[in-house]
Amino acid sequence: MKRETDVVRSDIEIAQSAQLLPIREVAEKLGLTEQDIIPYGRDKAKIDLAARERHPRTATGKLVLVTAMSPTPAGEGKSTVTIGLAQALNRIGKRAVAALREPSLGPNFGLKGGAAGGGYSQVVPMEDINLHFTGDFHAITTAHNLLAAVIDNHLYQGNALQLDPNRMVWKRVLDMNDRALRQIVIGLGGKNGVTRESGFDITVASEIMAILCLVEDLTELKEALGRILIGYTYDKNPVYVKDLHVEGAMAAVLKHAIHPNLVQTLEGTPALIHGGPFANIAHGCNSLTATKMALQFGEYVVTEAGFGADLGAEKFFDIKCRKGNLQPEAVVLVATVRALKYHGGVSRKDLNIENLDAIARGFANLLHHVRIVERAGLPFVVALNHFTMDTQEELDFVRTLCKEHGFPVALTDVFAEGGAGGIELAEKVVYAVEHSTQTFHPIYDLQGSIRDKIEAICKDVYEADGVVFTDEARRQMIDCEKHGWGGLPICMAKTQYSFSDNPKAIGDAKGFVITVREIRPSLGAGFLVCLTGDIMTMPGLPKEPTALKIDINDEGNITGLF
Amino acid sequence: MKRETDVVRSDIEIAQSAQLLPIREVAEKLGLTEQDIIPYGRDKAKIDLAARERHPRTATGKLVLVTAMSPTPAGEGKSTVTIGLAQALNRIGKRAVAALREPSLGPNFGLKGGAAGGGYSQVVPMEDINLHFTGDFHAITTAHNLLAAVIDNHLYQGNALQLDPNRMVWKRVLDMNDRALRQIVIGLGGKNGVTRESGFDITVASEIMAILCLVEDLTELKEALGRILIGYTYDKNPVYVKDLHVEGAMAAVLKHAIHPNLVQTLEGTPALIHGGPFANIAHGCNSLTATKMALQFGEYVVTEAGFGADLGAEKFFDIKCRKGNLQPEAVVLVATVRALKYHGGVSRKDLNIENLDAIARGFANLLHHVRIVERAGLPFVVALNHFTMDTQEELDFVRTLCKEHGFPVALTDVFAEGGAGGIELAEKVVYAVEHSTQTFHPIYDLQGSIRDKIEAICKDVYEADGVVFTDEARRQMIDCEKHGWGGLPICMAKTQYSFSDNPKAIGDAKGFVITVREIRPSLGAGFLVCLTGDIMTMPGLPKEPTALKIDINDEGNITGLF
Repeated sequence: MKRETDVVRSDIEIAQSAQLLPIREVAEKLGLTEQDIIPYGRDKAKIDLAARERHPRTATGKLVLVTAMSPTPAGEGKSTVTIGLAQALNRIGKRAVAALREPSLGPNFGLKGGAAGGGYSQVVPMEDINLHFTGDFHAITTAHNLLAAVIDNHLYQGNALQLDPNRMVWKRVLDMNDRALRQIVIGLGGKNGVTRESGFDITVASEIMAILCLVEDLTELKEALGRILIGYTYDKNPVYVKDLHVEGAMAAVLKHAIHPNLVQTLEGTPALIHGGPFANIAHGCNSLTATKMALQFGEYVVTEAGFGADLGAEKFFDIKCRKGNLQPEAVVLVATVRALKYHGGVSRKDLNIENLDAIARGFANLLHHVRIVERAGLPFVVALNHFTMDTQEELDFVRTLCKEHGFPVALTDVFAEGGAGGIELAEKVVYAVEHSTQTFHPIYDLQGSIRDKIEAICKDVYEADGVVFTDEARRQMIDCEKHGWGGLPICMAKTQYSFSDNPKAIGDAKGFVITVREIRPSLGAGFLVCLTGDIMTMPGLPKEPTALKIDINDEGNITGLF
Repeated sequence: MKRETDVVRSDIEIAQSAQLLPIREVAEKLGLTEQDIIPYGRDKAKIDLAARERHPRTATGKLVLVTAMSPTPAGEGKSTVTIGLAQALNRIGKRAVAALREPSLGPNFGLKGGAAGGGYSQVVPMEDINLHFTGDFHAITTAHNLLAAVIDNHLYQGNALQLDPNRMVWKRVLDMNDRALRQIVIGLGGKNGVTRESGFDITVASEIMAILCLVEDLTELKEALGRILIGYTYDKNPVYVKDLHVEGAMAAVLKHAIHPNLVQTLEGTPALIHGGPFANIAHGCNSLTATKMALQFGEYVVTEAGFGADLGAEKFFDIKCRKGNLQPEAVVLVATVRALKYHGGVSRKDLNIENLDAIARGFANLLHHVRIVERAGLPFVVALNHFTMDTQEELDFVRTLCKEHGFPVALTDVFAEGGAGGIELAEKVVYAVEHSTQTFHPIYDLQGSIRDKIEAICKDVYEADGVVFTDEARRQMIDCEKHGWGGLPICMAKTQYSFSDNPKAIGDAKGFVITVREIRPSLGAGFLVCLTGDIMTMPGLPKEPTALKIDINDEGNITGLF
């Protein structure tokens, strides 16, 4: 999250001036030895999956999910709060670990910038984490494109499997914002393979990214890769990676990528950063292996999920926690004065003007997110994340509204103050965990039909009046159930700005129906993607891309990344 | 190089059973401390470029180039001899370092396999070096495609520079053998940018790869990136990267890639492996920084250049040595009984049958390569690289032929015996270096016209009767000189199987003319690529790709890589 304020030092300046602990010492905080870590430079490492067996523990850490109200286009600082809360928990004597997603490289060159927290709540080395890090995304890109090359080679070399070139669903990926690659024709020139339409997605949209985040060892990885649906034959029968026998090579390419990455926050708190699937066409959480390792070696684990509770938290509960038998113990709901005003109807340019009425209206959005968290049986704390332009009256007013509803609320200023700005939040989170009598459960059952599950999410989570399926989606549901894929969980792809499928229906939208236009089976990842509205899987660059401002000097210091 | 023999253990089995020194200890052999190296895992590291200033040395190492006679399609084991010779030099008491190219990832999944030496003369960890290694090629892919995305974004966002979409010369790259991407149409769909023809090359063909191998620091890198020609305006004026202001971001992406990589051979000899430009449309040598570092920290540096002396050595002398003021002291010319028979007219399937007459005929090919080396003013040793099917009579006959010509010759069996199989070669190389009275000089002057330089290479090196330029090539030469690019060296792109531009004209082809069909300015790298014949810049996969045989088990052991 980026802060539009008068703070003098940029994120990258703060990050570059930090004194980092040798990564060995960060590992020691988790009880890990040199044998357990594979260094990448002096301040990054992978934790060998074998460390799990080397250091068995009976107790498990407490899992806290950071989610948010519906965001504004600028973001509400969820990653920053996640990192700041982990730092704050350490300050109050809890051995805390942050479990985060790896940022995508492509968006660094566009508008959005990196994703390593902000201000004094960042993970470091910030530039490395935002650029190549330990190469996981490059490995995913390679495995993905290896499969694509093998598919097109199969078409070219006689097509023994009788693949229908017009029914291939596997595209290619690059970790780059490159709109010109969205829709392309390949195999031109008369001798360069079968000419067909295809395209590139951004790497975080690769199904392999989602797979890497949901498997726990190489054997499971290989099985999941083998299950990937690549397309259909002329007879309309599904064809899987295992029919091409390429899952072994793909898994070999991912040999190192499967191990979680260890870095530190600006305050030396261990952070496991691993995997980063899109929060729309995938489930939007860091890897299960990283979260479980953090739970094995830490006392409190603070993790996050993409977008608001309607998308990120729902998928965290129903896909990740269900797959991994995780038991989250509390939720932090990030709210900001700005987002409350935005969802109260204030235009983006007026968000810096005090407006208590708008906050009161926008509070309905937060209330809806609270209902979602309560539906999963979890206690929560509202983190009111401070931005410089917020007035004291506005902050007090939000606190008052929360208190009127009986919500635990904490003002956080982890951006400006680091962990010290999150002590109140940390204390309330610990209280919630220690005093909770609720128990977590997924929001819907897997047993029902695909339609049942989609309706459960739309009605119970989004509070829609109903669901409409296009003819195509209806046909695809029938096909999926016919092929035996009906028992999988649903991965909703919906705008993050509204509970509805219309990004302009802000606040707590009511009286809407959700239109489902496509069901896309991610059989390797183990879910059915349900697409509503327009979902972008390859971003473009803006008119003035950040790439034109990024620079590096002869000493290797990068400027212009943010 | 892969050996078609009855050797029981495969390259990967030998490599996996090796006991590797901690990379710290390998660095110590070069006089480097922990401060100088950036670890990547336990057995790979980058050497910080700053180590050059930290450990100044007055003496410089002796540079030995390993090149070869014209190869057979299976390769003659040049990398294996390079690694074996470095091991052998260490065995006779010379502190030797190997300076090698990084293998391309893509070909591992095709037919060719990896490129980390063979048998008991390999660099290790073999799988890592062949797959992602330290991420250099991924960084190059990213920097290359970032530029492509910025170019297409510029076309889309108003095209202020008036770029002509039909005159853009910058394509995209992937480190994958993927023929379907050779020729594509991008920007389809009506809202995804400007529709135009384009394509992907393999990453080793990226001009950025060549640049990385010819610059010595980040400042020089950024300047070279800024000079890259991306295309022309509607008015046919050249447009450079610096006109788009993206060289800073590209250099930032290459921040780590610029530092040479340190690994070890199976005998613990330090090996600097850095960069790997194509030996046809680029100059085919490892990075200048790695070679110079090796010279600074080692006593003998054994390096190689792609293909035979007509291509690799010529470009090593005229491009790399000229750019870096390198003074090579001796050349090793790798010859094999198989290649001598092949160039004596024996078909590939009969290469295992003893044939002294064919060897006598094929010897003319080796003689021509000797003339090329002598033209550069360098002493040489012929390394007769032993393959299992060679008969004693054949080996003796080659020795006899060499002695008749007064050529120093050594039988090497570094594949089966490691450094012990290269002692004779090592001793003769040391003798050549210590007793040489010749001095190295490039083969042609930079002063002449483009035509003069091309003719010098074709007549003096290839011994062609003449050069024919297509109309297009003639126009391009005029354009290049008009734009002030005429003073650059020439980078010939020609088949490696013949001195002519016809791969079937084996042996010591005579009475041919070279047809130059295109001049492609690589202004960032600082040379003009002169294309003759068909040059493939994106390989395809074969009918039975290796990818279908590669596997990995739950412990992370890879099989099927070779």
